[in-house]
Amino acid sequence: MKKQKLIYYFGSQATEGNRDMRELLGGKGANLAEMTSIGLPVPPGFTITTACCADYHAAGKKLTKSLIEDVHRNMQRLEKESGKMFGSSENPLLVSVRSGAAVSMPGMMDTVLNLGLNDRTVRGLARLTGNERFALDAYRRLINMYGDVVMGIEHHHFETAFDRIKKQYKVSRDTDLDTDGLGDLLEAYKAIYKKHTRKPFPQDPYKQLQLAIEAVFRSWNIPRAIAYRRINAIQGLLGTAVNVQSMVFGNMGDDSGTGVAFTRDPATGQNRFYGEFLINAQGEDVVAGIRTPLPVMDMKKWQPAIYRQLLQVKHTLETHYLDMQDIEFTIERGRLFILQTRTGKRTGQAAVKIAVDLVREKKISRATALLRVPANDLNQLLLPSFDPAAKRTVLTTGLPASPGAASGYPVFTADEADARAADGESVILVRRDTSPEDIHGMHAAAGILTSTGGSTSHAAVVARGWGKCCVAGASELNIDDKRKRIRVNGVTITGKDMLSIDGTSGEILMGEVSKSPPVFTKEFKTLMKWADGKRKLRVRTNADTTEDAEVARQFGAEGIGLCRTEHMFFGDDRIMAMRRMILADNPQDRRQALKKLLPFQRRDFYGLFNAMKGLPVTIRLLDPPLHEFLPRDEKTMGELARIMKVPVTAVRNRVNQLHESNPMMGHRGCRLSITYPEILEMQVRAIVEAAIDCRRKRIDARPEIMIPLIGLARELALLREQVIAIIADIRREKRYRGKLDIPVGTMIEVPSAALTADQIAGHADFFSFGTNDLTQMTMGYSRDDIGSFIPEYINKGLLNNNPFQTIDGGGVAILVEMAITGGRSKKPGLKCGICGEHGGDPESIAFFQKAKLDYISCSPFRVPVARLAAAQAKLLDE
Amino acid sequence: MKKQKLIYYFGSQATEGNRDMRELLGGKGANLAEMTSIGLPVPPGFTITTACCADYHAAGKKLTKSLIEDVHRNMQRLEKESGKMFGSSENPLLVSVRSGAAVSMPGMMDTVLNLGLNDRTVRGLARLTGNERFALDAYRRLINMYGDVVMGIEHHHFETAFDRIKKQYKVSRDTDLDTDGLGDLLEAYKAIYKKHTRKPFPQDPYKQLQLAIEAVFRSWNIPRAIAYRRINAIQGLLGTAVNVQSMVFGNMGDDSGTGVAFTRDPATGQNRFYGEFLINAQGEDVVAGIRTPLPVMDMKKWQPAIYRQLLQVKHTLETHYLDMQDIEFTIERGRLFILQTRTGKRTGQAAVKIAVDLVREKKISRATALLRVPANDLNQLLLPSFDPAAKRTVLTTGLPASPGAASGYPVFTADEADARAADGESVILVRRDTSPEDIHGMHAAAGILTSTGGSTSHAAVVARGWGKCCVAGASELNIDDKRKRIRVNGVTITGKDMLSIDGTSGEILMGEVSKSPPVFTKEFKTLMKWADGKRKLRVRTNADTTEDAEVARQFGAEGIGLCRTEHMFFGDDRIMAMRRMILADNPQDRRQALKKLLPFQRRDFYGLFNAMKGLPVTIRLLDPPLHEFLPRDEKTMGELARIMKVPVTAVRNRVNQLHESNPMMGHRGCRLSITYPEILEMQVRAIVEAAIDCRRKRIDARPEIMIPLIGLARELALLREQVIAIIADIRREKRYRGKLDIPVGTMIEVPSAALTADQIAGHADFFSFGTNDLTQMTMGYSRDDIGSFIPEYINKGLLNNNPFQTIDGGGVAILVEMAITGGRSKKPGLKCGICGEHGGDPESIAFFQKAKLDYISCSPFRVPVARLAAAQAKLLDE
Repeated sequence: MKKQKLIYYFGSQATEGNRDMRELLGGKGANLAEMTSIGLPVPPGFTITTACCADYHAAGKKLTKSLIEDVHRNMQRLEKESGKMFGSSENPLLVSVRSGAAVSMPGMMDTVLNLGLNDRTVRGLARLTGNERFALDAYRRLINMYGDVVMGIEHHHFETAFDRIKKQYKVSRDTDLDTDGLGDLLEAYKAIYKKHTRKPFPQDPYKQLQLAIEAVFRSWNIPRAIAYRRINAIQGLLGTAVNVQSMVFGNMGDDSGTGVAFTRDPATGQNRFYGEFLINAQGEDVVAGIRTPLPVMDMKKWQPAIYRQLLQVKHTLETHYLDMQDIEFTIERGRLFILQTRTGKRTGQAAVKIAVDLVREKKISRATALLRVPANDLNQLLLPSFDPAAKRTVLTTGLPASPGAASGYPVFTADEADARAADGESVILVRRDTSPEDIHGMHAAAGILTSTGGSTSHAAVVARGWGKCCVAGASELNIDDKRKRIRVNGVTITGKDMLSIDGTSGEILMGEVSKSPPVFTKEFKTLMKWADGKRKLRVRTNADTTEDAEVARQFGAEGIGLCRTEHMFFGDDRIMAMRRMILADNPQDRRQALKKLLPFQRRDFYGLFNAMKGLPVTIRLLDPPLHEFLPRDEKTMGELARIMKVPVTAVRNRVNQLHESNPMMGHRGCRLSITYPEILEMQVRAIVEAAIDCRRKRIDARPEIMIPLIGLARELALLREQVIAIIADIRREKRYRGKLDIPVGTMIEVPSAALTADQIAGHADFFSFGTNDLTQMTMGYSRDDIGSFIPEYINKGLLNNNPFQTIDGGGVAILVEMAITGGRSKKPGLKCGICGEHGGDPESIAFFQKAKLDYISCSPFRVPVARLAAAQAKLLDE
Repeated sequence: MKKQKLIYYFGSQATEGNRDMRELLGGKGANLAEMTSIGLPVPPGFTITTACCADYHAAGKKLTKSLIEDVHRNMQRLEKESGKMFGSSENPLLVSVRSGAAVSMPGMMDTVLNLGLNDRTVRGLARLTGNERFALDAYRRLINMYGDVVMGIEHHHFETAFDRIKKQYKVSRDTDLDTDGLGDLLEAYKAIYKKHTRKPFPQDPYKQLQLAIEAVFRSWNIPRAIAYRRINAIQGLLGTAVNVQSMVFGNMGDDSGTGVAFTRDPATGQNRFYGEFLINAQGEDVVAGIRTPLPVMDMKKWQPAIYRQLLQVKHTLETHYLDMQDIEFTIERGRLFILQTRTGKRTGQAAVKIAVDLVREKKISRATALLRVPANDLNQLLLPSFDPAAKRTVLTTGLPASPGAASGYPVFTADEADARAADGESVILVRRDTSPEDIHGMHAAAGILTSTGGSTSHAAVVARGWGKCCVAGASELNIDDKRKRIRVNGVTITGKDMLSIDGTSGEILMGEVSKSPPVFTKEFKTLMKWADGKRKLRVRTNADTTEDAEVARQFGAEGIGLCRTEHMFFGDDRIMAMRRMILADNPQDRRQALKKLLPFQRRDFYGLFNAMKGLPVTIRLLDPPLHEFLPRDEKTMGELARIMKVPVTAVRNRVNQLHESNPMMGHRGCRLSITYPEILEMQVRAIVEAAIDCRRKRIDARPEIMIPLIGLARELALLREQVIAIIADIRREKRYRGKLDIPVGTMIEVPSAALTADQIAGHADFFSFGTNDLTQMTMGYSRDDIGSFIPEYINKGLLNNNPFQTIDGGGVAILVEMAITGGRSKKPGLKCGICGEHGGDPESIAFFQKAKLDYISCSPFRVPVARLAAAQAKLLDE
């Protein structure tokens, strides 16, 4: 049996691993080896394999002799390469120790830096750097980290000692403590260490190293890590690797420094070297922002050779990784080290430009470019955003429910929003939550902010439909709508204080923040063209108004997948007729009221058909429970009664009668059409009359009628027959003999519908999955109420995502697949689409591609996202 | 090709059909033939086949010549057999015409009686009967029925004319109109007939007959009948048959009469002839109850030969049909005719006795006996019922939610129920609906009456669990709980007016009604023994208290399938600790409050284990959302705040915070255990400590822990691990090394759990289907809210049953089957049970048998029903 290799070295001497060895070296180790082997000046070190971890546990938590010997051997290689000695008081070699498994995993052992320092070597380091304070500080950090991470001493013990000594030296900031103070602190730390471990802090550097390695191995099997692997079904891993790497310091004098850089501009995507650095500083100093860093171009003057070397690194990295890189570097005494490279984060605009440019530079294929741009990032191109350079004072953070940026004065009722917006003011509607009664105020507001509800709450869904900025569920807001003020984290905001909300980050900001407008670059158009050439899924939009339809068409929508007719009933001129209809206690009065609504609906449909001419327009019949159209509070009920000339008890009784314990599963959807067939009759009439009007004006109207909440094949059989009879009646009435095929289909959103899809397909011209409701019922999650437990579910790894954002890959996905298979078994080629919120989510779109849907439908502003995601899904499904 | 037979005659001459020919002769025709052929004196007649109906429609709605000839030929046979002549003014033959398809179908043409009467024959009939009034009345009925049913003249036209003539003759009742009046009425009817059909009433009897036959055929294809067949997927039928039968009259003098009889006593099952009759009367007179009928025994004196003949008929029928029969007979001029026989309706007690007696008489097998008793009818044996002889004044009718009978004074709050019951009064708790806060009052009351909610509402479920009488959803009740009174149909009931409620019929009765006690007959015990010998499904019970468990065990329960622990938190001494727990804002305070609950739970569990020793006791961890334990109104919140010494805002905020839009799908079930693990910890501790206490006293405790509302395998993995760790901890603490296997299983009640059952089974020792919630989520029906549309769904044939009473054979059944298959694919032989309301429903039990469940669990008082139904299901599944 060939002896297994225990340790993989990386350095100028030899580099034994590469990026394909994640299983054995862990992610971190494989990457360090890769960087070294493509010639990047990485501080040398070595990786102890994951197999050693398995051996360690198998041997009853003991390091094997051969491993200890191998560690020594590799330390000697390190010493040779670095010219430093581990434990030397002259020129001490210091190392870091880090864990690193093949899959990143919370709860495992963290980093220990500066290993190798002891009472002697610290003096060598001080001499070497000419900076005693630096050396002492490095040593106290080691004892703290080592004590905490390796020996399990609780961090607060060290914290308390630090506070005591700062008080003694009358300083407030850690960095103000002088060398005397640090000396005292070191003694205190050593005492703490001894008290808790019953042993002095190990002065033998090899002892330090050995214990640190063992601590990493042990952390693989702590209960939290085991639980994490079990819950996430992570199986077949050997253990964690251990990375030992020589330390470099950018704070060893004026020929040292540290910085970060991007190989292209991460904001715009321009192909220019971009970054900043600090002379004589550590990595933390750049991040902390205490000193102002210099632009990386200034390095040309400071150390031109290093600058040239960095430009070479940029070239090497892009040639190797074929993407824009984000690098961390340190210059120790005039020598450049690359500490890390990773694919650089970038704005949506930059992502598009870099991807298209790389194709033009013949570095990547079009397919790669399409896969390279996170589809969600396109949103940033389509909506205004806050100027990244503007100063932000964050009051609190909510859920980023609908992207964009908005500033305005807070208003607390829909009416106030309407009134102040009419006066030309920019307002943010601030509510606990919103309901369909607030629609006019939501439309008038520049943005919407709620303290409850998630990204699929009413506010969020409506806002996304309009491309309006919305932050939801900002639970720290204490909204006092009587006194018209908000209290949040000790600040009180009144109607006179301007607020800004960032729908992309969820931040709520004090005052007005300047904004950048949306940018449609030529690279964006190119990428979209490539996407359309690739994708198989058609992309429709969810739109209820002519304006929405027009916006969506500009964004490339290929039809309307969902027109929610109920939104059409909320106009001032309509809601009264709607309420009269609901308060009617007999079909005659109901018909009378519906007659008033007919012309409005017909006009709305005419507008939609015209805006979408030549493309399908799927109209969903009335869906929400009727109580949503009635007022909730006594006062408004009284007003309604006066206007309608009925006793207030009549209104109140009807409101009480319509009250439901679980309205989501109550009297709504097709159940309304079954019990009040006259509503269906009016809506179908409006659709057909509008379509005939269009056709007679040579407008190619293509309506599709969609019946919601079907659970039983018999329901659809009955309603379809009614719809078809009404269509025939109207054609006769109107003496219209021209072309007019109106498919009649159903939503699949009740589990029983998905389970009996074969029967339902017999009565359906198409299926459209309502994945919001399907998720609610399949998982038993009321989407308005999940705030109390879903965050904890995601924290604990029980769910990977909020299932209302990304479709659940368990039961919900099974039902969608069953329904498609069932439906097409009865009716081969049955057209299947999806019109839930998931239609705009890239991860869900990947599933819809696999499930062989024909189309997806999403809000207008997500159409480009969906087009790109559909192309990516097709590429990944090939 | 052999010429198809068009008409089947039945009579003494020849009987050409039999009961197996339903397809061709319809149900009615086949039965008339059968009765005739076993020698019963049935008035002769003939049946035109369903194939003729198909021919009629195929020929463009024309009767074929050969059919018309055949009708004539058969009418001649009838004339010959009856000795009467169709159209004769001397001795006229009169016939009835009735439709009758193979499947009974609403909306088809009804009966026409007295066909053959015209201006001439009516005089013959008058002479023959010596009763001119009778003859004229028969004629006017013919014109009315014929005009309405055959010619489609709306009934109200005849009604109006009748009213006018009664006014003219100054009489109020129809029967008071004399022959002159009837003469005028006949003229008026003929005028109406002529006005609407533009033709005089046909005087030719054959014309009458032909048009009536055509009307029956046409009624097969009216839209309502077509829709009914389509919706109910009734396919492959040829059409409707037509039955033409000679009329007989029991009102032709003192040697005539009419009556009904049962071959055994339908109340007790005793083998004695039982019935009543009227001399010189028509069938309607017996039903109308104007004259008091004589007991059938009195016939011995009146016409001893007829009486003997009837006894012979009884014997023939029982020998032929092998069951107790309910017969209608008429004696026309000393000659007996049997007009109908059908299986007689009987009480539960009679059903049991008859079935067991018939086995003893060697008429039927044990299997037949088991199938003969409707399992639901056993309820009547187990509960008190109102004396059938007692006078009833029905105020209104609600849903029969929990069987039994109760009388008491109405009370409007749980506290009042408690107080007045403590004073020794019998009270009925009358509420709009009930909630867990009302439990003490519900327990104290003799019965429960609600104006909303259905048979699966809180009131109904709790009541059934206790075997307490409940009528729910009596929507006509107008409950004014402030003034403590009820208004219903013009009557006002106060707290001083005794009420009675019948949980079997749903009736609400004025005053106190005398009751019959339950009867456990020896036949009942025999039948139960046979059932237990046959069934494969084990029968457990849903019980939360020792008393319930003991009752259920007496009824034959083989364990507890569902112990709802939340009911244990409502006692006066517990609810405060529970509320303190809920109001706690950190785990420490929560643990403190839970510590107070622990001894109560432990004591409860000890009691259950002891009552059920040797049998499994499945305990479900806390399931309902926490807000159910908090008060809802400001006043009670204030009281709670005072008692708990917290500000009322703290209570109100928590109540608001816990408010959910759709609590059914909110923060409940295992979601509580995930977010508040300390609740689970306390409950598991109570279970394990109680079990160890029992074991140490040599009580064979067999707890099973059941985790509710699991939707994801990861949830169960996490919680199961916690439960097992706690069990191990307590064993260690208690130094208990004895036997104690506690299976940990899950409820399957969320669709996603059923869909991913293979994964879930990996972490479950058993599955228990919670079919209530599974139905809610699979069909999207909130069971508290279905009242607004389910009745219409059942009316329109969209649903056959309320799916909360009988399990839905569509999606829900598919999910149950998928889950069993999925679970057992991973874990062969996985124990699967059901603990929803369906566990006590015979039709659902048939499905559970087919689905290969191991056990069902139902409320204590339904255990015998379930035992019998399980045996029946096994017999039908063989």
